[in-house]
Amino acid sequence: MNGAQALLRTLVDAGVNVCFGNPGTSEMHFVAALDSVPEMRGILGLFEGAVTGAADGYARMADKPAATLLHLGPGLANGLANLHNARRARTGIVNVVGDHATYHKQYDAPLESDIEALANTVGWTRTSGSTEALATDAAEAVKAAQAGQIATLILPADVSWGDGGVPAAPLPPPVRPTVAETTVQAIVDVLKSGESTVILLGNVGTRERAIRAANRISQATGVKLFAETFPTRIERGAGVPALERLGYLAEQVTWQLTDVRHLVLAGAKSPVSFFAYPGKASDLVPDNCKVHVLAEPADDITAALEAVADVVALGVEPVVQEAKRPELPTGDLTPQNWVDVIGALLPENAVIVDESNTSGLLLPVATAGAPKHDVLTLTGGSIGFGLPNAVGAAVACPARPIICLQADGSAMYTASALWTMAREGLNVTTVILSNRSYAILKLELQRVGAESTGPKALDWLDLSRPDLDFVSLATGMGIPATRAATAEELADQFREAQAQPGPHVIEASIPTLF
Amino acid sequence: MNGAQALLRTLVDAGVNVCFGNPGTSEMHFVAALDSVPEMRGILGLFEGAVTGAADGYARMADKPAATLLHLGPGLANGLANLHNARRARTGIVNVVGDHATYHKQYDAPLESDIEALANTVGWTRTSGSTEALATDAAEAVKAAQAGQIATLILPADVSWGDGGVPAAPLPPPVRPTVAETTVQAIVDVLKSGESTVILLGNVGTRERAIRAANRISQATGVKLFAETFPTRIERGAGVPALERLGYLAEQVTWQLTDVRHLVLAGAKSPVSFFAYPGKASDLVPDNCKVHVLAEPADDITAALEAVADVVALGVEPVVQEAKRPELPTGDLTPQNWVDVIGALLPENAVIVDESNTSGLLLPVATAGAPKHDVLTLTGGSIGFGLPNAVGAAVACPARPIICLQADGSAMYTASALWTMAREGLNVTTVILSNRSYAILKLELQRVGAESTGPKALDWLDLSRPDLDFVSLATGMGIPATRAATAEELADQFREAQAQPGPHVIEASIPTLF
Repeated sequence: MNGAQALLRTLVDAGVNVCFGNPGTSEMHFVAALDSVPEMRGILGLFEGAVTGAADGYARMADKPAATLLHLGPGLANGLANLHNARRARTGIVNVVGDHATYHKQYDAPLESDIEALANTVGWTRTSGSTEALATDAAEAVKAAQAGQIATLILPADVSWGDGGVPAAPLPPPVRPTVAETTVQAIVDVLKSGESTVILLGNVGTRERAIRAANRISQATGVKLFAETFPTRIERGAGVPALERLGYLAEQVTWQLTDVRHLVLAGAKSPVSFFAYPGKASDLVPDNCKVHVLAEPADDITAALEAVADVVALGVEPVVQEAKRPELPTGDLTPQNWVDVIGALLPENAVIVDESNTSGLLLPVATAGAPKHDVLTLTGGSIGFGLPNAVGAAVACPARPIICLQADGSAMYTASALWTMAREGLNVTTVILSNRSYAILKLELQRVGAESTGPKALDWLDLSRPDLDFVSLATGMGIPATRAATAEELADQFREAQAQPGPHVIEASIPTLF
Repeated sequence: MNGAQALLRTLVDAGVNVCFGNPGTSEMHFVAALDSVPEMRGILGLFEGAVTGAADGYARMADKPAATLLHLGPGLANGLANLHNARRARTGIVNVVGDHATYHKQYDAPLESDIEALANTVGWTRTSGSTEALATDAAEAVKAAQAGQIATLILPADVSWGDGGVPAAPLPPPVRPTVAETTVQAIVDVLKSGESTVILLGNVGTRERAIRAANRISQATGVKLFAETFPTRIERGAGVPALERLGYLAEQVTWQLTDVRHLVLAGAKSPVSFFAYPGKASDLVPDNCKVHVLAEPADDITAALEAVADVVALGVEPVVQEAKRPELPTGDLTPQNWVDVIGALLPENAVIVDESNTSGLLLPVATAGAPKHDVLTLTGGSIGFGLPNAVGAAVACPARPIICLQADGSAMYTASALWTMAREGLNVTTVILSNRSYAILKLELQRVGAESTGPKALDWLDLSRPDLDFVSLATGMGIPATRAATAEELADQFREAQAQPGPHVIEASIPTLF
C-alpha cells in the first residue's frame, strides 16, 4: 500500500468520505488511489476557490469535515479566500496539499513556494515527512478539523507514492467542553439582576435546539436575543423560535444594543464594526455595558444555554414562529419584492445559501415564517462563497432543496462552481441578483467619508460596462438558465426549477438599492 | 492631501500610471483619489487573479511595473497564484493591499488576517505605518518593483484617509549590475576550450538584442543556444535569430543536453525537472557537465553577451530566421494543424500569450518564420495566467495585436479577465484550445508511475461532463465569440477577428494529444 492509499483509507475510516479537489502532477498518486478506496467520493472543481468553498458548505451542513485536494502553493493560495470564510465559520476542513518530493524541493523548481506560510494563515498545518508517518498525521489533521479548524496536511509527492503506508485508526473525536457550573450561575445572576440584557448567539448557538433554550430564557426573563451578524448556520422558519441577527452596519448594532447593560456571549464574539470608519467606534459594545461569556465558540453552547434555562425558565416553553408567507408580489422586480417571491415559494426543508448582499437586506423578514430551513451566511466577508457553499451543502444534503441567493459581483469570483453543480447533478436553484454594480461599495464609499466621488471612482463600482449575462454564463457551464425581470417571471421560473431535479440558474434583474 | 492622493501622485511621478484593481471598503479612499490624479489609469478586474495576472503581462511588455489594488488578505490571496508566476518571471509589480485601520486591527474583525505572511511568500513587503511615511514607502515599493520584485505595500485605511500626505520624489531606478571582466574572460575561456558547450538564455537574455549577441557567439564558436523552458518574454520570428527552448519534459532536456560538458547560464537558472518522478533525476545537468554563470538574472545580461561576442565573434554577423509561413491546412482541427493556422496568419508585430499547454507543443515550429513577435509563457506553472496576461499586454501595447492561445482547463481559473478585455476594448484575439480535458495530467498520471488508472481517477482529468461552452461564456462577458471545428473555420474566424478592433474569442475544438 502506498502513502496515498493509506491516507485515503485513514480519512474514510475517520468519516471523511468526500474530497473536493483540483489536482496537478504532484497529486497524481492521490488521484490514482481514489479507485482503491471506493468509500471516498471525489468531486472535481475547476478552481480551488470553488473547491474550498464547497468543503466549507459541506461541513456546515454535514457537521463533519470534508477533504480537499489542492496543487502546491498556488493551488492552496487560490483556495485561501474561502478557507478564510471557513476559518471565521469555525468549519473544519482537511486540506491535502500536494508538494514536490522532499528531495526535489532543494532545486527551487518553478512551482516551489512556501506552502506552510500560506497554510499557517488559516490554521493547523503539518508537512508529512515520511510515508510511515503519513496516516498518523492524517488522523491528527482529521481531529483538528473535527474541532473546527482548517487543517492543512502538506503531502510531498514521494511521501504519497512511497511504499509502506499503513492506515491509522481514527482518533477519538474532540468533545465540546462543558461550561462550568459557576459560569452558568454567574450568567443566571446577571439575568436575575433585572438590568437590560442581551444574549448574543453564535456558532451552534444558532441551531434550533440552542435557540429553543435561549428563547425559553428570553420568555422567562425578558432578555433580548440576537444571533451574530453572519452565522455559520442558522435554523429558522415556522416552528423554530424567531431570532434576529445583529446588523451589518455599526449604526444598526448601536440601535439594537441601545441601553443594554449586560451582553452575554453564547458562542459569539463581542460585536465589532466590520470595517473602521473615520470618527466612528470600532467596538460596538455600549459604554456602560458589561460583557459576560457563557460559552466560547468551541464549548458545548447548547448545554450551557439549557443549563441556564433550566434554572431561570423551568417549565417555560419556547414561543415558536408561526407559519406565515408573504403574498406573491407582482410587477417589476425590486430589492423589496424579490425576497417575497422567495418567502412565498421557499420549499420545505430548504437550505438557503445567502450571498445576496445588499439585494437581500429584507430576506430575513420575507422568509421568517416560511417552512423551517437553514441559512448559511458569509462569515468571513470574503466574497465568492455562495456558489461553492451551495455545492457543498447539496453534496451533504442530497434530499434537501438548496437555494443559492447570489449577488452578481460576488458570483464572478468562483463562478465555475456552477460547472460542478451540473457535473454532479446537484439540486441547487441559484438566483443571481443582478444589479450590475458593487452596490455595497456605493454605500461604503459614502460611509468612509471619501471626499470626491468622481467618474473614475464610480466606474470601479459599476458592472454594467459590459453587462454580465448570467444566462449565457450558466448555459456555458451546462446549467439550464432563465432570466426574470418581473416578480411573476421569477415566481414561475422558481417554481419550475423546484419541480425539476438538478441545478438551475435564474438571473433576476433587480435595481441597485444604493 | 490625504494619504491615498499622495500615494497615487508618488506612483505616477515614478512612472507607474496603470492600476489594475478589485477594491473593497478598506480601499475606498484610494478609489476616490483616482479622480484627483488623472495620470493614473484605473482598470477594474472582477477577480484578483485577473488583476495580478494583468499587472504581470503589463510589466512584461511595458518594461515597467503597474500597480494593483487588492482588498485585504483574501484579496491578496486570490491574486497570489499569478503573483507566483510573476515572481518566477521576475516581473515587477506594486501591490497596494488595503488593510483595516491601524486601531481597528485589535478587534479581529471578520476580514482580519495575516496579510504580511501572505505577501512575504512572493517578495518585498511593507506595512505603511503613517500617512506621513506612506509616500516614501511607496517610492521604495516602486524601486523594488523596478528591480523585478513583487512589492506589496499594505495600506491601513486610516493611513490612506489621513491628512498630511506629501508625495515623494521617485528614487533613482535600479541599474542592472555589469558583469565583471574576469567573468566574461572565464566564459571566453570555456568557449575556446573546444568542448561541447551550451549557453542557456533567460530573463532579458531572450530579447532580440541579447539573442543576436548569443547567436554571433554560436556562429563563431559552434556552441549551442537554448532559451529557458518558460521565458518571461521571448522575441522571435523573421529577422530574429532562431532560439530553441529547453523542453518541459526531463527526457527532452536530457536529449537536448546530451554530451554537453559546459553549461553557461546567461540570466537563466540551471535546469531542473519541473516535477519529481520516481527513479528519475531532478537536476537535469548531465553528470560530466560543469555549470558556469555568465550573468545572473538581475545582471546586465545583454551587455555580458555582447562583451563575450566582441571577443570570440568580432565581425561575425548573426544568422537570422528567414520569413517563412506554413501552408494553411484543411480539415478537422488537430493538435498538429491548428498551430499552422496561427503560423500562417499571425499578424505583424503580434504578442502571443501562450497558455496552450499540451495543445501548443508544435506552436514554436509553426510560428518560427512568422513576422517578428513576442511570446509570453507560463513562468511559474500556476495555470490561469493566459487571459489576464493578455489583458496586461494589450494595455501596455495598444497598437499591437495580442494573440492569446489559451487551454480550456486553465482558462477557467481566471475567465473573468474576458470581461475586462470587453470593458477596455482591448485588441485581444483569444483562441481557446478546447480539448475538454486536463490533458497534461493524462500524460503525467502515467509519468509519475501511478499504478492504477481507474474510472474515478480518469474522471478527474475529464472536462467533458458537462462540456464547457466558451462561446456562451465569452458572450456572457460581452465578447463576440465563434466556434471552429475545422482548420478552414479557424482561419476564417481568426482573419475576421484581426480585421475588427476589440476582443474576440474563438473556441477551437481540438482532440486531446494524450
